Formats: sequence, C-alpha cells, structure tokens
Amino acid sequence: MNRFVVRSVMRGLVNGRSYCSGGSIGGELAYRSAIVGRSMQLSGQQNGVTLGGFEWRRMMSSAPASVEKATSEREEKSENPVAGETKGKEVVTSSYWGISRPKITRDDGTDWPWNCFMPWETYRADLSIDLKKHHKPKNFIDKFAYRTVKILRIPTDIFFQRRYGCRAVMLETVAAVPGMVGGMLLHLKSLRKFQQSGGWIKALLEEAENERMHLMTMIELVQPKWYERLLVLTVQGVFFNAFFVLYMLSPKLAHRIVGYLEEEAIHSYTEYLKDIESGAIENVPAPAIAIDYWRLPKDARLKDVITVIRADEAHHRDVNHFASDIHFQGKELREAPAPLGYH
Amino acid sequence: MNRFVVRSVMRGLVNGRSYCSGGSIGGELAYRSAIVGRSMQLSGQQNGVTLGGFEWRRMMSSAPASVEKATSEREEKSENPVAGETKGKEVVTSSYWGISRPKITRDDGTDWPWNCFMPWETYRADLSIDLKKHHKPKNFIDKFAYRTVKILRIPTDIFFQRRYGCRAVMLETVAAVPGMVGGMLLHLKSLRKFQQSGGWIKALLEEAENERMHLMTMIELVQPKWYERLLVLTVQGVFFNAFFVLYMLSPKLAHRIVGYLEEEAIHSYTEYLKDIESGAIENVPAPAIAIDYWRLPKDARLKDVITVIRADEAHHRDVNHFASDIHFQGKELREAPAPLGYH
Repeated sequence: MNRFVVRSVMRGLVNGRSYCSGGSIGGELAYRSAIVGRSMQLSGQQNGVTLGGFEWRRMMSSAPASVEKATSEREEKSENPVAGETKGKEVVTSSYWGISRPKITRDDGTDWPWNCFMPWETYRADLSIDLKKHHKPKNFIDKFAYRTVKILRIPTDIFFQRRYGCRAVMLETVAAVPGMVGGMLLHLKSLRKFQQSGGWIKALLEEAENERMHLMTMIELVQPKWYERLLVLTVQGVFFNAFFVLYMLSPKLAHRIVGYLEEEAIHSYTEYLKDIESGAIENVPAPAIAIDYWRLPKDARLKDVITVIRADEAHHRDVNHFASDIHFQGKELREAPAPLGYH
Repeated sequence: MNRFVVRSVMRGLVNGRSYCSGGSIGGELAYRSAIVGRSMQLSGQQNGVTLGGFEWRRMMSSAPASVEKATSEREEKSENPVAGETKGKEVVTSSYWGISRPKITRDDGTDWPWNCFMPWETYRADLSIDLKKHHKPKNFIDKFAYRTVKILRIPTDIFFQRRYGCRAVMLETVAAVPGMVGGMLLHLKSLRKFQQSGGWIKALLEEAENERMHLMTMIELVQPKWYERLLVLTVQGVFFNAFFVLYMLSPKLAHRIVGYLEEEAIHSYTEYLKDIESGAIENVPAPAIAIDYWRLPKDARLKDVITVIRADEAHHRDVNHFASDIHFQGKELREAPAPLGYH
C-alpha cells in the first residue's frame, strides 16, 4: 500500500507562523507553500518511507498544485472520500485545521520516534526506593482493603502461574485505570467546587500514564492470545465502573486498595526477576521504547526493564498509601501538596 | 486555629535518600531527623505561618521527640484521632508514607506558591493565532454540531447577558470536561487494545487542565452565587454523562461540537474585551496565578488575562477541529501525531 508522509514543520509552533519548506523524497516532489497560521505540509510519495516517525495511509487522491487548489479539492472530496485510488495521482489528506508538530531529535541527532512521550518526559528511576515497605492494616478499612487484594491474588495466581510476562501485560491494563479514574473525579470536583487541586489531579494522571507506559513496553515482548484479550476487555468494563463508584463513595478505601495492589505488584515483579536470573525466562534485549522512556543504556536487557518498572510500582504504592492516610486524617488531598515529578 | 507547617525536603527526591534538616520557625523548634526512603518532615508551631505555600490543620496532638517515638504515637493515635486538642502540645500529622516535595523557587528566589502547576509548565500564549478561523459545516454531522452549539447559545445569552466574568467562570466548568472525558476514553482504549496513543491522551488531558486553569484564574475575580453554584453542579452531572456517551458513540461529532463551542468562546471573550476597553467592566489587576501561569508582566491587568485565555481557546478550537477531521478521514487519532506543547 502506498503511504503518505507528513513532514513536521519545525518553525511553525515556535513563532506562530508556518513556513513549510519541502524537499524531494523518494524522487517525488513535495510542494512548497507559505501557510498562514498552523497547517501541515504533506509530501506525497510512492515509497513507504517514514519521516519523523509517523505516516498517513492514502485515503483520497487528488493532484495538488497549490494550497488553494488543494483546499478546494479537499472540500469537494471530504463529502465523497474515495479510498485507495492511486492511478499515479498524489493523495491529499491535509486539513485546514492541521496542526504541525515540530521535529524532535535526540541528543545524538536521530529523530525522536515516539508521540506519547517526549524527551523531557523521560527519567531515571530511583532504584534505592525501599521495596519492602508495607502498610500494616490498622483499622477495618485497611483490613478490608488488604484482604480484598489478597483474595483477588488467588485466581490471578491460578490463571497466570509463573507466566510473569503475560501477567504483567494483563495486569497493567488494570493498574492504569485507578489513576485515571481518581484524577478525573478530582478534576470534576475541582471544577464544581471552584477549588484548587493541590497538584493531585496531575499526580494521579501521571501514575495512570506511567502504568500505561509499562503496558506499552511489555507489549513489545509479550503478545496476549485472543482469549486473554477478551478477558482484558471484560475486566476493564467491570473494574472501571467498580472503581469509579468506589472512588466516589470512599477515596480513602480506594487509595488503600491501590496501595496494597502495588505491594502485590512489587512482589510479582520480584518473582519475575528471579525467573530471569535463574534462566527460566530469557533475558532478552530491552525494547527501544523502554530504553528511551527510562533512559536505560543501549545494551539494557529485560532484567533492567523489570527493575525500573518495579521501582515505579513502589513509588505508586507510596503515593496511594499517602493519599489514603491524608483521607484518614479527615483532610482532602488538596490540603497536602501532591508528590512531584518522579512517576 | 493553630496550624502545622510542612517543610519540604529538597534533596530527598533528587538523590533518593532523605535527610531533612529543620530550623526554627516562629520560635518553635523543628526536629532534625535522618529519614530513610521518603518521608515528610514536620515542624510544629503555634503561628499560622505558611512555608512553601501549604499548611496542615491540626488534627491530633502529641509531643514528637524523635521519629521513632512519633511513629509509635502515630500508630496509637491513628485509631483514635482526636481533633483539635492543643493544650500546649504539638500535633503530629505525619505518616510513614509521606512523600516530601522539593522546595521550588522562582527565578527571583521567592517560593513557588502553586501546587497544581510548576514553573516549567508555564508558557507564553501565542497571540498571533488566527481568531477568525471558522470551520464551515460541510456535511450532516458538521451542521448538526454547529446548530446544536448555536441553539445552546440562546439560553446562555439570556442567562448571562453581558456578565462576562460570571459567564467565564461557569462555562469554564463545562469546557474543562470534554478534554478529560476524551483523554480518559482514549486511555482506556489504548489499554484494552494494546495500542499506542499517538500523544492524543496527553493532548486532550492538557486541554482539560488548561481550561481548569482558566477557571482557577477567573474564580479569583468573580465569585458565583449559591444558585449559580447549584446550576454548575447540575450542568456538570448532565454534561459529563452526555459527553461520555457521545464520545463513545461518535468521537467525530464530539470533537466537532467542541470545536464550535471554542469558536463561541472566542466570540464571548472578544465581547468581554470590548466591555473592558469601553470601561463597562473594570480592568482590575491580574491575579497572581495568571501572572505566573502565562508568564505575564507583574503589572498585567484583566485585559491581558482575557487576551491570553482567548488565544488558548483558539488553540483548542484548532485541536478539536483537527481531531474531528482525522476521524472524518476514517482514521483514528493515534494515526496522526498529536499537537504538542502549547495548550
């Protein structure tokens, strides 16, 4: 299939005006155009070369001669999109509303291939974090949370056994939900009560995004089977709704449960590391996304990845037990500044 | 009421080990302790001095002599919290799980007073953005979206008339919902389908947070009445659920509606500026939160604040029309890199 390549405009977002300059790619000419405001420049080509890490599939065909002509053709075509017509014509999939992305490069000059995180959002995990910390249940709510998590571990262990890669993939789809639900409910509360958030909306959303990055990393290594995907769908439907209601009724209990879930995650990742060290699980090279996200050395292996993921889980444990403690003291989260930075 | 002050630990998060050093605050001694891992240092005092922009209200009383003693007292007290006991004792509200926040200062050395945004998250709005851009409805969905927004404007204009400050406060509580709902639904989709997001989760969540910052700014200037607060509660309940369902059924229509809503917001803010320029609305000094968030000059006024807010709305307009266009081309958002950075 022929592909489109979108070239990012570097100066566009910096000075508010876009001047897009194109060059020859794969033998096909890109058009030069001065574009007011923010627009995307497209260069059509017949090869499957990807520039800047993103591609467009061809959906419509037209022969761009100028921006104005392309705009009018676009208006005609948008009501009657024709997929897949090539016949030697170039395809225009631009939109007047297109917002260009500046070209991002690594320190060594290579293109930054990721869209969901930027170089300034990467970090080195703190491996000195105490993995053994455990919140001793003190009252009914703590004990309820602890026992719930321990009970949920039973079917999980039966299903996954020592398939830790698969366990990681599937449980990260669950782990990424609480932060998003909590962040969203705090956001809505801040809006309707006209109150500051204390930074907690961001803290919880960052946790959710970090767990999602764990998933995006593990999925490079482990592919779930069709019935495992079905299970993920089902569990998400149930867990999202259940946690939503729980957080509205008792954020104290919700955070405590998440704290204990993270303690279990640390235990599981420790077992995963044991299996890697014993050779039961192959210590494969780390995926590129992990090397960039956690600033790992280029020759990092799976063991390094699991180690940093485990450190992240320890941090989430601390954040959630802390959040629960704040509630236990009869305060709202916004009354204590949220933990910054490190996910 | 006596207050507690939490002193942030600066080195703690940087090197992974916390050594908290205290000093004398308001005549009361803070204790020095070497704390392994991440913990908060508390300094008890009788005055209401705020350090670092955050405060704790006193909930329990005990006399801290060392971390170990404080810990055991904490364990005793946590089951029987006693609110408000003072009798000359200092109150311990620490938790083993407390995570310290590093001290953040501005360039001029003064403390950074905000928790919900950090200095590196501030920006200068792009005032050269084209405010006049309008998406001409091309098909049934566009026309439905446009007419819906125009119809909703009628009761809004009747209710607010030229009370633009009040309009801004109340409508920002609505405007901050779509980005959060959209971001969350994309997040859940990314998890269950094991797919990359293209950066759109972050783009939409940033939009929601930006709208919330508009609200946090305007609330410094305009206080809604009790019936307006009740209206906000009601509207949030209805709109959140309606938009949630809409986004699941037709993200194309959802983004188009938001794009048109932003066009209306630009129009409203333009009218607001006209009233400020004519003197009908007083051009008061800009609130501190706005000066920090948008990097405005220290002598900025309301007019400057409304100008940058309007520029933000124009950017949201572009992002949402762009997102809708992507859907119209039969693609998913993740197939086009999300707009970066500028909110």
